Amino acid sequence: MTDARETLRLIYFDFPFWRAEASRLALHIGGVEFEDVRPGREEFRAMKASGELPYGQLPVLDVDGVRIAQSVAIARFCGKRAGLYPESDVDQARVDELLDTATQITSLLTPSFKESDPERRAALRANLVARDLPQWFGFLEARLLANGDGGFLVGDQLTIADLLFWKLLGWFSGGLLDGIPKTVLDGQPHLRAHFDTIDSLPEVREWMERHYGSPS
Amino acid sequence: MTDARETLRLIYFDFPFWRAEASRLALHIGGVEFEDVRPGREEFRAMKASGELPYGQLPVLDVDGVRIAQSVAIARFCGKRAGLYPESDVDQARVDELLDTATQITSLLTPSFKESDPERRAALRANLVARDLPQWFGFLEARLLANGDGGFLVGDQLTIADLLFWKLLGWFSGGLLDGIPKTVLDGQPHLRAHFDTIDSLPEVREWMERHYGSPS
Repeated sequence: MTDARETLRLIYFDFPFWRAEASRLALHIGGVEFEDVRPGREEFRAMKASGELPYGQLPVLDVDGVRIAQSVAIARFCGKRAGLYPESDVDQARVDELLDTATQITSLLTPSFKESDPERRAALRANLVARDLPQWFGFLEARLLANGDGGFLVGDQLTIADLLFWKLLGWFSGGLLDGIPKTVLDGQPHLRAHFDTIDSLPEVREWMERHYGSPS
Repeated sequence: MTDARETLRLIYFDFPFWRAEASRLALHIGGVEFEDVRPGREEFRAMKASGELPYGQLPVLDVDGVRIAQSVAIARFCGKRAGLYPESDVDQARVDELLDTATQITSLLTPSFKESDPERRAALRANLVARDLPQWFGFLEARLLANGDGGFLVGDQLTIADLLFWKLLGWFSGGLLDGIPKTVLDGQPHLRAHFDTIDSLPEVREWMERHYGSPS
């Protein structure tokens, strides 16, 4: 899977948001060497001002000097290199569907992130907890169950989709988002179990300890 | 590319929004047979209520009875079947990047679609026209120019990314979105020329005439 002559350089902030963390972790699990560049805010501003970021945002991935942007495109590429992307076109599409769903679920937060009024913001978050998140996590629970008892989202092996949702669901249920309780996954026991399975993989534990000195 | 034994069934409304039209058109151009199912609003409501739609939304694609959801995942699969998706992982990632960018540009409209107050809605649209759209179309213009003079977004052949942006940019510049003028691409002459190139392909003309009896 890995081309030994290829040079990979992944650029993102020094925090474990899914937009780059699923890609970094995939490369780590796959034993693929890459330059793990973590700019600070000032460096990011300078990059943005220089016009070197195709859409003014991170992450970007340089593959032998060819710059690729967009989190999900990068995650798919890293999944391929790490052996964490399926072989068949249909299973690839099933993984792709889930990656796009991660983007859609993340976008549910946009209105509340943009809302500066604390009361309106709290109301938006309450609505998410009461309505949108149970609906979307329910969709995911159904997708997981439709894949059988193997514990993975697609097929019977770990894919980039599992890593990406581990990060996404950990973010939503980690108590870091105002108004979203740690119990937000409690209505979806299989999805919760999926999170715990990925979270306890030795390579995941090792990576999180090394970079963030933290249990999850 | 096409597996003759495979049965494809693409389900979406009877209008040419990019979310399914790029996929339908790709299959048409590639000469890939598929069932082109176009439910009305009532049929859609019934589908949604039955729980058969993985995320309660269209399009979905059935591949030998395996249901795939999410517009971009479907477009990529159809691009593969139609021979409109590159061979190398890096060029695939470049196409993927653009497909994700289409989602991001579309999401710029969400706040104004959700705004019911006409004045606030008009202000949001004015902001898009003054700031966000020129910025994002400028990003695309730069991506197009970085690919050289071939007239395509990635490499020197038509890909699913060209078809998808043809639809997306036609929508933005078609005068159908309140407050967004038909001149919205005028600041990006190469992007405008790209639109015109794809728009005048004989297969595109034929498809649009057949299904919508309309020039674009």
